[in-house]
Amino acid sequence: MYKKLFIPGPTQVRDEILQVMATPMIGHRSQDYADLQREVIPKLQQVLYTENLCFLSTSSSTGLMEAAIRNCSQKKVLNTICGAFSKRWHEITLANGKAADPLEVEMGQAITPEMIDERLKTGQYDALTLVHNETSTGVTNPLYEIAEVMKNYPDVCLLVDAVSSMVGIKIEVDKLGIDVCLAGVQKCFALPPGLAVASVSQRAMDRSAEVKDKGYYFDFHVFLKYYERGQTPTTPAIPQIMALNQQLDDILAEGLENRFQRQAEMAKFVQDWARQYFALYSDERYLSNTVTNVKNTRGISVAGLNEELGKRGAMISNGYGPLKEHCFRIAHMGDLTLDDLKWVTGQIEEILGL
Amino acid sequence: MYKKLFIPGPTQVRDEILQVMATPMIGHRSQDYADLQREVIPKLQQVLYTENLCFLSTSSSTGLMEAAIRNCSQKKVLNTICGAFSKRWHEITLANGKAADPLEVEMGQAITPEMIDERLKTGQYDALTLVHNETSTGVTNPLYEIAEVMKNYPDVCLLVDAVSSMVGIKIEVDKLGIDVCLAGVQKCFALPPGLAVASVSQRAMDRSAEVKDKGYYFDFHVFLKYYERGQTPTTPAIPQIMALNQQLDDILAEGLENRFQRQAEMAKFVQDWARQYFALYSDERYLSNTVTNVKNTRGISVAGLNEELGKRGAMISNGYGPLKEHCFRIAHMGDLTLDDLKWVTGQIEEILGL
Repeated sequence: MYKKLFIPGPTQVRDEILQVMATPMIGHRSQDYADLQREVIPKLQQVLYTENLCFLSTSSSTGLMEAAIRNCSQKKVLNTICGAFSKRWHEITLANGKAADPLEVEMGQAITPEMIDERLKTGQYDALTLVHNETSTGVTNPLYEIAEVMKNYPDVCLLVDAVSSMVGIKIEVDKLGIDVCLAGVQKCFALPPGLAVASVSQRAMDRSAEVKDKGYYFDFHVFLKYYERGQTPTTPAIPQIMALNQQLDDILAEGLENRFQRQAEMAKFVQDWARQYFALYSDERYLSNTVTNVKNTRGISVAGLNEELGKRGAMISNGYGPLKEHCFRIAHMGDLTLDDLKWVTGQIEEILGL
Repeated sequence: MYKKLFIPGPTQVRDEILQVMATPMIGHRSQDYADLQREVIPKLQQVLYTENLCFLSTSSSTGLMEAAIRNCSQKKVLNTICGAFSKRWHEITLANGKAADPLEVEMGQAITPEMIDERLKTGQYDALTLVHNETSTGVTNPLYEIAEVMKNYPDVCLLVDAVSSMVGIKIEVDKLGIDVCLAGVQKCFALPPGLAVASVSQRAMDRSAEVKDKGYYFDFHVFLKYYERGQTPTTPAIPQIMALNQQLDDILAEGLENRFQRQAEMAKFVQDWARQYFALYSDERYLSNTVTNVKNTRGISVAGLNEELGKRGAMISNGYGPLKEHCFRIAHMGDLTLDDLKWVTGQIEEILGL
C-alpha cells in the first residue's frame, strides 16, 4: 500500500515531479543535456543566494561530505558533532586519513559560535564541518551566528551540510561566506534520491588546487573542467536533474520566502501538537523548521504506531539510533502542507486514542 | 524532438521502464526498501554468474572504478590501456595517490594475455585494471584468456570495468575469478543513468580490510555492513533500483543467452554494413558486440550526419576524443533490436545518398 511520507527523507514527491522522472533519456554529452544543466545551475545559485560554482554530484549527500573533506583540508579538520549525521562527518574525515578533532555536544543540543571560537583560536585547523539541521535530533544550529565568528578565521573553510535544510530554511551562502554548502535532493527539494548538489567557493577551489591525492570522482577541479561545457565529469543521474529543473521552477514560482514561511508554519503546528500530547526532545531555542523530534513521554510503541499509520497510508520515523523507541520524528519539509500535517497528527491521535 | 538513442550510453530506455521510474517514493530504511534490495541482489548475482557480494552504488561507473582502486591496492596497480576509459582508470589510480604503471596499446587494438603475463612476472603489482569492452574504440578485450593468465597470480586482484558489456556479453564472474566486476545501468541494462553495480570477491574484501585511508563513500566494508540488512550505507537512487528490479526480470525472461545472441546478431549486421559502405576502425579479431566504431573513409561530416539523423528522430555518436570526425559509433546494446539497427543504418544511407 502506498504511504505518504512524513519521514525526514526521502520526502513525499508530487505526481507532477514523478512524471518528469519518466522522461525519455538524452545523451549526457549532447546539446540537450548541456542546455538542461545551463538552465539548472543559475536557478540553483538563486535558491542558494550565491554566485559560487554549483556542482551536480551523482551520489548521496554523504558523497559530497567526503568531497568537501578531500578537497578542503590539508592540515586538520574541526568536526562539530550534535547528532548522527554530524558524527558521520567525523568518521568520514578520519576514514580519508585526515587529521581531525571532534567538538561534541549531547544529542538534542546545538553547536554555539562561542564553542567554535574557543577551538579555532588554537590555530590548528583549516576546515570546520557543521551540520546545519541535524535530521537525527531536529536541531537547527545557529548558522548565521556561527558564520559571523568564522569571519575571524579566513584560513578555515566553512563546510556546511544543509541536507535537511537547503530550500527549507534560508541560507544566504555568499553573505555567510560558506565554502561548501551541500544537500541531497530527496529532502527539502522533495525529489526522488540519487543526486546531491553543492555550492563551492573560490577559497575552496584554491584550497583544492593545493591538496594532493583527492581522488577523481569527487575532485572539485575535475567537476570544474566539465562544468564550463555545461556537463558533469561522468554520466550523471539525468532523470533527477530533469526533475530538479522542474522543481526549481516550482520553488521559484512559490517564492523562496513563502516556502520558508510554509515550513515554519508546519513546524510551529507540529511543535505545538507535540507539546500538547507528548514533549519536545531537543533544546527549545534551536528547534528545526523541517523535522520535529517528539519525545515519547507516553511510552507508546513507536513501531506499533508506525504500523497502524501504514494501514492508513502514512509513514513517520522512529527516533534515530539510540533514540529508536524513545522518540519519533515527523518531517514537515518539501512540498508537504499544513493540511497534510493536520491530517497525519489527527491520525496519530485517533490511533492512540488521545 | 525525441531521439532514439544509438549512442553507447545512456542507451534507449523502454517506456515500461520509464514508467517504473515514476513510482512513488519509499523510505530507504523501510521494510519495503529492504524487500526491494533483497529481490534485486540474487537476480544480479544470476546475470553475473556469481555468488559474490553485489553492491549497489549511487554513482556513475567511474565511482566504482575509484572504489576498486581504493579498496584493492596497497602496492602497485598495472593499468591496461587501450582507449579513453581504460586511460581514465590510470588517471583515477594516480589521483588516489596509488603507485601505478600503464600497459598501453594503440587505440583500436586489444590487450593480450601475453602482455599482461610479461608485466605481472615482475611481481611488482597487487592489482590489474582491465576495461572489458572499450566504448571509445569498439574493442572487446579477450577477458577469458586474460583471466586464465591471472590464475597464475593469486595475489593480484583482477578489476574489470564491464561498463558497456555487462548483460550484453557473457561474463562468468566466478569461473573467471574476477575480483571486482563493475558497470553502470545506463548501458547494456538499458536503464536511465544514476546507479552503478559491482560484484566483489572475498579476496577483494580481504584486501580491503588491510588497506588504510579508503574513505567512506566507496569503502566496500561500509557497503557490507548495511548489505546484510538489505540496505545501502546512504540514501540510494531508489527509482533506478526499482527500474533495475523490473529490468532484471525482463532480462531473465528474455534469457541471458538469447540476449547475448541478439547483441551478437545486431553487431554482425552493423559490422557488415560498415564494411560495405565505410570500414571498421578496430582490430577485426576483437570487435565489440555492443558498439561499432565505423571509420569515416568517405570523409563525411559526422556532426552533419548526426544533425540530419536528429531530424529523423535518431542519434549516433561521433568518434571519441581525437577520433571525433574520423569515426562514428553506432551502439547496438540493451533493448535495441535488429529492426532498430536496420532502420537507423537505412536512414544513414538515405541521408548520405549511399
